[in-house]
Amino acid sequence: MLIHTGIIEGAGFTGGELIRLLLNHPDVELEFITSQANVGRRIDEVHRGLYDETDLCFVAEGELETLDVLFLCTENAQSEAWLRAHAPLPEKLKVVDLSRAFRVKESIADDADDALASLRREFVYGLPELNRRAICDARFIANPGNFATGILLGLLPLARNLMLNGDIIVNSIIGSTGSSERSATLTSFSWRSDNISVYKPFHHQHLSEIKESLRQCQTSFNSNIVFIPYYGNFTRGIFTTIVLKNKVALGQLEHIYEDYYEEDSFTYLSRKPIDLKQVINTNRCLIHLEKEGDDLLITTCIDNLLKGASGQAVHNMNLLFNLEETTGLSLKSTAF
Amino acid sequence: MLIHTGIIEGAGFTGGELIRLLLNHPDVELEFITSQANVGRRIDEVHRGLYDETDLCFVAEGELETLDVLFLCTENAQSEAWLRAHAPLPEKLKVVDLSRAFRVKESIADDADDALASLRREFVYGLPELNRRAICDARFIANPGNFATGILLGLLPLARNLMLNGDIIVNSIIGSTGSSERSATLTSFSWRSDNISVYKPFHHQHLSEIKESLRQCQTSFNSNIVFIPYYGNFTRGIFTTIVLKNKVALGQLEHIYEDYYEEDSFTYLSRKPIDLKQVINTNRCLIHLEKEGDDLLITTCIDNLLKGASGQAVHNMNLLFNLEETTGLSLKSTAF
Amino acid sequence: MLIHTGIIEGAGFTGGELIRLLLNHPDVELEFITSQANVGRRIDEVHRGLYDETDLCFVAEGELETLDVLFLCTENAQSEAWLRAHAPLPEKLKVVDLSRAFRVKESIADDADDALASLRREFVYGLPELNRRAICDARFIANPGNFATGILLGLLPLARNLMLNGDIIVNSIIGSTGSSERSATLTSFSWRSDNISVYKPFHHQHLSEIKESLRQCQTSFNSNIVFIPYYGNFTRGIFTTIVLKNKVALGQLEHIYEDYYEEDSFTYLSRKPIDLKQVINTNRCLIHLEKEGDDLLITTCIDNLLKGASGQAVHNMNLLFNLEETTGLSLKSTAF
Amino acid sequence: MLIHTGIIEGAGFTGGELIRLLLNHPDVELEFITSQANVGRRIDEVHRGLYDETDLCFVAEGELETLDVLFLCTENAQSEAWLRAHAPLPEKLKVVDLSRAFRVKESIADDADDALASLRREFVYGLPELNRRAICDARFIANPGNFATGILLGLLPLARNLMLNGDIIVNSIIGSTGSSERSATLTSFSWRSDNISVYKPFHHQHLSEIKESLRQCQTSFNSNIVFIPYYGNFTRGIFTTIVLKNKVALGQLEHIYEDYYEEDSFTYLSRKPIDLKQVINTNRCLIHLEKEGDDLLITTCIDNLLKGASGQAVHNMNLLFNLEETTGLSLKSTAF
Repeated sequence: MLIHTGIIEGAGFTGGELIRLLLNHPDVELEFITSQANVGRRIDEVHRGLYDETDLCFVAEGELETLDVLFLCTENAQSEAWLRAHAPLPEKLKVVDLSRAFRVKESIADDADDALASLRREFVYGLPELNRRAICDARFIANPGNFATGILLGLLPLARNLMLNGDIIVNSIIGSTGSSERSATLTSFSWRSDNISVYKPFHHQHLSEIKESLRQCQTSFNSNIVFIPYYGNFTRGIFTTIVLKNKVALGQLEHIYEDYYEEDSFTYLSRKPIDLKQVINTNRCLIHLEKEGDDLLITTCIDNLLKGASGQAVHNMNLLFNLEETTGLSLKSTAF
Repeated sequence: MLIHTGIIEGAGFTGGELIRLLLNHPDVELEFITSQANVGRRIDEVHRGLYDETDLCFVAEGELETLDVLFLCTENAQSEAWLRAHAPLPEKLKVVDLSRAFRVKESIADDADDALASLRREFVYGLPELNRRAICDARFIANPGNFATGILLGLLPLARNLMLNGDIIVNSIIGSTGSSERSATLTSFSWRSDNISVYKPFHHQHLSEIKESLRQCQTSFNSNIVFIPYYGNFTRGIFTTIVLKNKVALGQLEHIYEDYYEEDSFTYLSRKPIDLKQVINTNRCLIHLEKEGDDLLITTCIDNLLKGASGQAVHNMNLLFNLEETTGLSLKSTAF
Repeated sequence: MLIHTGIIEGAGFTGGELIRLLLNHPDVELEFITSQANVGRRIDEVHRGLYDETDLCFVAEGELETLDVLFLCTENAQSEAWLRAHAPLPEKLKVVDLSRAFRVKESIADDADDALASLRREFVYGLPELNRRAICDARFIANPGNFATGILLGLLPLARNLMLNGDIIVNSIIGSTGSSERSATLTSFSWRSDNISVYKPFHHQHLSEIKESLRQCQTSFNSNIVFIPYYGNFTRGIFTTIVLKNKVALGQLEHIYEDYYEEDSFTYLSRKPIDLKQVINTNRCLIHLEKEGDDLLITTCIDNLLKGASGQAVHNMNLLFNLEETTGLSLKSTAF
Repeated sequence: MLIHTGIIEGAGFTGGELIRLLLNHPDVELEFITSQANVGRRIDEVHRGLYDETDLCFVAEGELETLDVLFLCTENAQSEAWLRAHAPLPEKLKVVDLSRAFRVKESIADDADDALASLRREFVYGLPELNRRAICDARFIANPGNFATGILLGLLPLARNLMLNGDIIVNSIIGSTGSSERSATLTSFSWRSDNISVYKPFHHQHLSEIKESLRQCQTSFNSNIVFIPYYGNFTRGIFTTIVLKNKVALGQLEHIYEDYYEEDSFTYLSRKPIDLKQVINTNRCLIHLEKEGDDLLITTCIDNLLKGASGQAVHNMNLLFNLEETTGLSLKSTAF
């Protein structure tokens, strides 16, 4: 029995990666992909590397009645608008929203009306390493942000052990496909090649979902997170370092991380130093710890399009439908 | 029923890619991987992106009796030496040699003794688009060279139609993982980054297998091939352009290519211009034709580690064991 | 005594490089830079690497009366329009036009009116290795195209010796700053990084200036040039290979090239293989020859923004004003 | 009157950059360059981008008597050994040592004998922004480390104002030419391309010179510096972010930095965000400040081979000989 899936606004980076995953997923039938800007164009004309894998073309609207799960690759405001415009959705239809729109419960206070607040309450934050049980029983999934995923996986075991009690300094370098920014300069090869820069220091929009998730583990969490995101000169990946004070011995911390991720299929503590290309084109997160005195350095690596977006969305779908969670996600890494 | 496989000298670029493929191949059990220089080291310590996918360690020698197929990732001279040293091989054992050692029948005249000449006669040149039937019945496969694959797939339909009757100018740009060259300078990031250069113009060692394969299709083939290989500043891929004289109309030529590759699972004529990243991390070859007067431009793209080496080796294995030929090779492309 | 210079539309790639050169030129005063889209913005806000080197801001119009030389960094059609709109120019004002508008004399037949045809006749094609004398006496210089420069410097010594008598196959790979193309996809980092592709094969607009210049040396020149331009995944440089038939011995050809370029300050025959980064951030052109039988391979490298555009424009200015031709062009190469 | 210069062990990255600078320096005569491994080879055969700029060849030893200044591009231990082996040096000879050997006064306690301790006392730490006066009067200059330069220039104005009183978190990403590491893997294109990784966190050897220099400005300085160096996937440059607590308003801090660097020729506070390529191929350091609450983010960019090594060495030479300090260092930036 196949899972019937559809994608709303699948012409961008995350939409393309999701299509590449779903076309190879053994239990999935991809029914339609919408893109208002590309109606009628073949999918493999827009998305690289799909030559002859599908004859589908982008459509303006898809049939929702016969669908099992819908992925929203819409921008944030559009997700909300789309869900309002299509309410009520068919009862059996599940939704994985890859935008930021419904990730944070705190926003309920700001919601325009009760319907929206009520919808927001139904959403589960789709980080399996945090909310696996709840995801399995959910109908609406808010897929985590790419930075948030890399940072939370580095901090959750500490939060679970109530160890986040001081300033947290986070530096994260992201590849060009992680950027929804459409500035011609910032995304141009001439500018970005061989370059590094900081953008939005202190104020990145992922901070709220990070803090809310940490408080879920450690109610008392109230620390300052100094978050410095960078544009890197590569296409895929997020490399994160986190520095904080911690008095526990390194060996003990390593056990805490290994315990936390023991049941997880994609997230690992590596006892050896890690580098970004180890995870590229995989759904894995690798984590490494080093200590000097009370200073703890946590390094994490993910592929922003996979574990940071579409791979995690498929992981969530697998959980929603009680599949083995690695189904369709045992990807050959690029390695080089 | 699983195919039991082993790899000789699997610590290099092609060995690593082969391991990444075989670990995910549903019908394969990877029994052992030798590497004289790495005996005892974990595989995932040497090969990127395999974190926790295998607990295998490199060994010095593997058990051949229970094996179905052996992949030689040895250097050219070593393949010959290894086969001599291990003769006679168990009768049911098949061999896919990724080196250049046994690709060319013409070399029989130069073989040191009858045993070697006789062994060479048993080898089938493993380009499925040329020798699919013979591969299915073979015991020894000589896996084609990476450049040779990209060039032959651009020329075979013309050769089959006896259309190669004049000079052929070939320019091929290869990524850093295609280079067995071990020069510290040429492989260094500082030198290769943002750089392009020509190496071994006119004299590349793949010319003999290219010419022999073309003669297999067009007995009269005797044209001059001017082959200019380049080092490109990327890690994966071979981008080839071929220029030659041809009087047939473009539309007719496109039909000739489409007919030739109609039954093939990985090689396609694209009616639109192609670029290298369309095939990266896939086993595909894309081909595009353009014409101006009598000048025909053929462009081809492959991933040197997949269609140009280890992907093709797995393809050959699938044929040797009568599997669906795409098994284990439906790879999610990287795209970016 | 300083040369007073101005730049029309200096906000693009060639404009930026020209500004970086002129600000460091010991005999030049840069008076103004226009950019209709950037009026009032500081130069160092738009152009990288100029921090605090100048307090100039872009203007809409500059004073021409007191100027010695004007550089047009306008698009092709705009150069013509600008010159018509500002005719007659002050008598002592010289012009270096970096666009394609006035490079080809053959276009005179197509000129809309006599004034334009007459203006075109005054322009000298500014390739010093071909037209040094004429440049010194000229008032209007048509600065050569970037591809044309790399290709002509590889062919001129043969043309001068009447040796171009058969098909010429040219492959040229260009960096992202050589592309005036404004397509968001083609110039985006996500697409171009690690990628290679062919564009406009056979039909590139530089072919006409190449052919006209070759005919200037070899009146009989009438050969077919098969020109395959590529987009490379680097920012600066053009790497060109040229293949043609030639019966003269390699050593003799090398002497022909060395003789041809003996007096030139920037163009050299290298007896060793060359690579692109040898010329990056310099105004040099390196040329290397290899032969196999009658097949001659000519390799050339230039920096597209310097020898291929703004460096050559400054070289032409130096000739126009009888300066030592390397003045302001002894640039420290980047090397890495 | 020319300054007669020599280079000891000039075959590496910093030696090459120094040669490229000195050959274009108007007041310098480069007399000899030693390299034990390259005796007899032409300089332009080893160093890129120097085609035909010099006919010098590497020698085993140079004549010291007629020399004005000697640059040591030796590894750390070798600098010490070389100076001992050649003691006493001609009295008028000045020395700029690019190694780490003599940067730290604290090491005097560990010196093997009095001669070495006494020699160390003579060395001035060659960061002009810190020690300009002392450099002008010095005979021996210890040229600062590349990381140390980027970090100190970000911290000195605070130290001068006694504002370093808590933990300092430093993240620095360096290009491949900044790495003296000779590991074939870490420097290989296949590994480093599109990759990011951390190395030697907490323990980098530059920490001692950083701390000693900060104490020179702020005697009380005793803060913890958490230093995380990264390997970046570019060839040139160091991009540094520094996070620390500070209660002073941003505008006031900006004035403090502008005051500190008012007299400096190469170091600037930029009021706009900066990116690495703004300084590539220049001797500049750009600094940018941002604040959120009490968290101060300091970003700095330098070219590791110029401001981080050979450019600073030439700057020091200019000071030693009372030249205008920008002489030979007004470099055209690469920009792209």
